[in-house]
Amino acid sequence: MAKELVFGHQSPDTDAICAAIEYAYLQNKLGYDVEAVALGKPNDETKFVLDYFKQDMPRVITEASSEVDSVMLVDHNEPQQSVSDIDKVTVTHVVDHHRIANFNTEKPVFYRAEPVGCVSTVIFEMFNEKGVEIPAKLAGLMLSAIISDTLLLKSPTTTDVDKKAVKELAKIANVDYEEYGIKMLKAGTNVDARSDQDLIDGDAKSFTMGGKSIRIDQINTVDLNDVLKRKDDLLKAMKAEAESEGYDLFLVIATNVLDSNSEAIIYGEPKDALEKAFNQKVSDDTIALPGVVSRKKQVVPPMTDVLD
Amino acid sequence: MAKELVFGHQSPDTDAICAAIEYAYLQNKLGYDVEAVALGKPNDETKFVLDYFKQDMPRVITEASSEVDSVMLVDHNEPQQSVSDIDKVTVTHVVDHHRIANFNTEKPVFYRAEPVGCVSTVIFEMFNEKGVEIPAKLAGLMLSAIISDTLLLKSPTTTDVDKKAVKELAKIANVDYEEYGIKMLKAGTNVDARSDQDLIDGDAKSFTMGGKSIRIDQINTVDLNDVLKRKDDLLKAMKAEAESEGYDLFLVIATNVLDSNSEAIIYGEPKDALEKAFNQKVSDDTIALPGVVSRKKQVVPPMTDVLD
Repeated sequence: MAKELVFGHQSPDTDAICAAIEYAYLQNKLGYDVEAVALGKPNDETKFVLDYFKQDMPRVITEASSEVDSVMLVDHNEPQQSVSDIDKVTVTHVVDHHRIANFNTEKPVFYRAEPVGCVSTVIFEMFNEKGVEIPAKLAGLMLSAIISDTLLLKSPTTTDVDKKAVKELAKIANVDYEEYGIKMLKAGTNVDARSDQDLIDGDAKSFTMGGKSIRIDQINTVDLNDVLKRKDDLLKAMKAEAESEGYDLFLVIATNVLDSNSEAIIYGEPKDALEKAFNQKVSDDTIALPGVVSRKKQVVPPMTDVLD
Repeated sequence: MAKELVFGHQSPDTDAICAAIEYAYLQNKLGYDVEAVALGKPNDETKFVLDYFKQDMPRVITEASSEVDSVMLVDHNEPQQSVSDIDKVTVTHVVDHHRIANFNTEKPVFYRAEPVGCVSTVIFEMFNEKGVEIPAKLAGLMLSAIISDTLLLKSPTTTDVDKKAVKELAKIANVDYEEYGIKMLKAGTNVDARSDQDLIDGDAKSFTMGGKSIRIDQINTVDLNDVLKRKDDLLKAMKAEAESEGYDLFLVIATNVLDSNSEAIIYGEPKDALEKAFNQKVSDDTIALPGVVSRKKQVVPPMTDVLD
């Protein structure tokens, strides 16, 4: 049987890289000759996971057809998310948890998709169905991928199947998944390693509301205090940027991805509009935003309502 | 949970109808509320199967959106093979063994496809994976579908997975699958019930080769003698049609779908061209065509080579 490559999508996250490793292991056990590769470098969270479970990072490829005729896809199916020369190879297997779009084959394929929180949950089921034992290291990777995709089982995409998988995998990997998960997500957010400037710019967008120029930045974290303890320094950087760029109001929203709460640091005016918009008091240049995780859905609309 | 419909493709064969019944049973066991329906009437083979295992024929629908919002597809995925208003409903589940083409979803779905001989083989695996017991009647339907799609495990599409499934299902259904399979395929071919005229016209195509007008008809059977025993009557009908339609040469090829052999009844000339084309002797207006099953690939090309 000719060798095939297994890989996840471009700009890989923890699930894309771990799922390729997991599925390659399973397929090799089932008699295929496959190698897990990746379509990009690991992010900080994935580096933490691979390091924690002493797993080598798969090599990164930019094209497949120079090495193999056939490939297996995990965590994606849409061609534009795949390897650059996907049209030059045959896709023989897909394991996924996304919508199916623009995926066409000439011949029948293995295709396994379920609407669950993480593709590693599907691969976990496949190990069980095929009766292939999951080594502790691999269980650790699966567990990490599910925690990553579901934000520790708290994202609205989480299903009971994901929850059950995490509990079983935690036993095999012999880790306290909640404690480990927070460490892992923290490694991914990694606020401590970022500069003040990077934090206020990293995910910032500009808006015009009621004639005011408003800047809204968002920082994902697993501990709001990681951001709030640097409030004085961040305010200095916000002030400098507001003055140079002409922002009337600058919000830096710290969002705790674990408990779905936010708190914003505020520079500029009108602060009273924020109090109205969010029905909270501004105190010491901060405002609590309980239950807020989405700038697009939960921040911009109420501010627009008040200011416009 | 809202009710959903489960169905196979248009112009349903035994697999399309049986797979809908099987998958509906499984999904109802797993907590869904589904009804198996069909997109057309059963053919003679399927009627034999339903009758043999005392299974009611699912009702036939022409559209789905007037009854349900969501559907599950078996044995197909391409929209043009599906219910007429497939674009007005949401597909939540697919179980298939064909290529994937023009199948796009807005949201993640359950999708299970394997490149095996019959979709009932995949459904058989799913029962086992989910630990759902297969009643004898349902095993009979699965068995029949696999025998139908793989021509009793002899078609080139047959895999080891299909063979294993048939053997296990035969035990559960308590049937001798070879004996039953021949009966079933025979019911599908049903040569005895067809008139001479229907037999020589049923699957006939006209060709021009070397200036000659040539008619080639093919009859699938499980026993060449079912056709050959009617040679004299068929020759009479062939002669009448050749004279009225101006055919120089008329071949009626009987193909045994079980052992992949054919024999042709011949009216007209040039018979010696057939002897050359197939390297066989014409005797008593017949010629043996060992190993021939495909008119398109194994009959037309050698005749064209000799006559043109």
